[in-house]
Amino acid sequence: MDRRSFLTKGAVGGTAAAASALAAPAYAQGNRTLTLVTTWGRGLAGVHDSAQYVADAITAMTDGQLTVELRAAGELVGAFEVFDAVSAGQADMYHGVDYYFLGQHPALSFFSQIPFGMNFQEFNNWFYHDGGSELSDELYSIFGLKAFPAGNTGPQSGGWFASEMNSPSDFQGLRFRMPGQGGQVLGKLGASVQNLPGAEVYQALSSGAIDGTEWIGPWADETAGFQEITNFYYTAGFHEPGPNLNLTMNLDVFESFTPAQQAIVENAARASNLWTMSLFMANNSAALQRLQSGGVQVLEFSDEIWDAFGTAAQEVIEESMGDELYARTYESYMASLTSSANWGSRSEGAFSAQRNRVMGL
Amino acid sequence: MDRRSFLTKGAVGGTAAAASALAAPAYAQGNRTLTLVTTWGRGLAGVHDSAQYVADAITAMTDGQLTVELRAAGELVGAFEVFDAVSAGQADMYHGVDYYFLGQHPALSFFSQIPFGMNFQEFNNWFYHDGGSELSDELYSIFGLKAFPAGNTGPQSGGWFASEMNSPSDFQGLRFRMPGQGGQVLGKLGASVQNLPGAEVYQALSSGAIDGTEWIGPWADETAGFQEITNFYYTAGFHEPGPNLNLTMNLDVFESFTPAQQAIVENAARASNLWTMSLFMANNSAALQRLQSGGVQVLEFSDEIWDAFGTAAQEVIEESMGDELYARTYESYMASLTSSANWGSRSEGAFSAQRNRVMGL
Repeated sequence: MDRRSFLTKGAVGGTAAAASALAAPAYAQGNRTLTLVTTWGRGLAGVHDSAQYVADAITAMTDGQLTVELRAAGELVGAFEVFDAVSAGQADMYHGVDYYFLGQHPALSFFSQIPFGMNFQEFNNWFYHDGGSELSDELYSIFGLKAFPAGNTGPQSGGWFASEMNSPSDFQGLRFRMPGQGGQVLGKLGASVQNLPGAEVYQALSSGAIDGTEWIGPWADETAGFQEITNFYYTAGFHEPGPNLNLTMNLDVFESFTPAQQAIVENAARASNLWTMSLFMANNSAALQRLQSGGVQVLEFSDEIWDAFGTAAQEVIEESMGDELYARTYESYMASLTSSANWGSRSEGAFSAQRNRVMGL
Repeated sequence: MDRRSFLTKGAVGGTAAAASALAAPAYAQGNRTLTLVTTWGRGLAGVHDSAQYVADAITAMTDGQLTVELRAAGELVGAFEVFDAVSAGQADMYHGVDYYFLGQHPALSFFSQIPFGMNFQEFNNWFYHDGGSELSDELYSIFGLKAFPAGNTGPQSGGWFASEMNSPSDFQGLRFRMPGQGGQVLGKLGASVQNLPGAEVYQALSSGAIDGTEWIGPWADETAGFQEITNFYYTAGFHEPGPNLNLTMNLDVFESFTPAQQAIVENAARASNLWTMSLFMANNSAALQRLQSGGVQVLEFSDEIWDAFGTAAQEVIEESMGDELYARTYESYMASLTSSANWGSRSEGAFSAQRNRVMGL
């Protein structure tokens, strides 16, 4: 994913225009209007749908007692300002992916995504039942916030390349678009990492200004049209195996709710979490079938390349280990991942591989 | 899983005793009390928790306007009577696994589990976004019911054996405990399938009266104590890769709800669906680590055995194809599974395998 790619309207530019619209939550006739800002451009497939699901579910379940109005990125505040806006009480809650805010705290990476990290199910095992939510509460309360996992894009694809990638040395000098920590990892392999705005990526790949790009997954990738430019598509990627999207509330606002309203927010987020993941998986699955029918070559990186990704990713992750809460969260995260990965691979992983082989799926 | 193993109190025996307690839902002071019956014995780890989650969430979110009282198997009606009881309006809703009710309709297997079928995520892709919910509504409405996926045990283990299983012929004459369609599959391989009550399995395995048993997963298996008898544990199984647990409502009762109450039921079920799956995965993961530390050998069936399972499973599944709704649901289910399995294995599957290899998980 790319920070700027998610904006259909200006992010930072939206702030000044919307400043006069910032106000305390309105109360009228027993109904309370709450503002949900997002890191997504209005209508962006999947992620905007996820935020809208949460808004609609809270409004419906409270019969309008809490009426949640969604303001997409740029409509009230810019995408990268939602964390501060909700922390300061200028908006009541946001829906977004928190690796945008690593400048506020590096441990936010565990509640969004670290390279080589947890997939959707592993994250939820940790969050709901293995210490994750307690660490989340500790972290977000520093900023006067409370976060609820409320969606996931599922695994993001490794990306589109102009040619096959056969060894780690093929990344040397490669002009590749990948934002965030994933881009830092590729940088350690010698890639020339490009951070292009989303709207410019197709043209850059088409003109040869870049040699490849990561995007989201087959659903969004097909819409972007990369298959018109190149046939080399690596589906599995190291960088975002299951990015968590949070519904993050201003803590004072959350604590002003009745217990019933608090239960509604929590359950709306959990319902959206699964509904959104399933939305992405269903649409990605259908899109991949179309891409393959259209002649796209689905490829996998070699073990040697994965080893190089892994070494570099570990370096990136360990760069923040000086922070006590980061280090403590890392320890909890890795213990849970180690446990989940073992059972997961020996049960569902082994079953799925055999089922797909036996049934020819 | 085993029908009888889930009962801590008598199932059928509970009916007569509880008959006088059957009554129309109570209405008092604006609050409405609803009865949730289950196919689980009170307190049974994971599955009872899942039903209790739904009851508590609906009660909390409606601030008691809908107060859901859970009656476990045998407390009001027996486990195998919940489908008929809710269909007839004797109870308002049930929480259970619907392969118990294949006698009512064979297509209920798709909304619980078929051998070699969908895992948790694939089921939810299908149900929420690829035609599953529409077919569910069509099926359950025949019985005056409406079903909401509300939990999952995750993949169930292949089972405990007295010795290693090296070829399909090792199943010839094997005295093995496995209920339901899974047992039918093993029967086709020549096994002597035993359907023992849960309380008798440990003793039967210990005395050598049976050669092995399937149970649930590491969490429940460890509690049952099978590791005290044998060390040969096959984690991946063909029979229940992700059984769906439904919250199933009496349709008239559901339609008597306000839109806000309907939204609360739907979202409570979705939240429970993910929360329950994560509960099982987290606890199974921790238990498997303990079992391995205690010396249990974690094994995988050979390709040859999986092939034999697959051929037999296909025969079992196709035996009901004469039913039009079954055949139509099968077609939708398989199309969605084919699509989901392709993307799933090329993204999350490939990633997880590489991550676990690179990081030594």
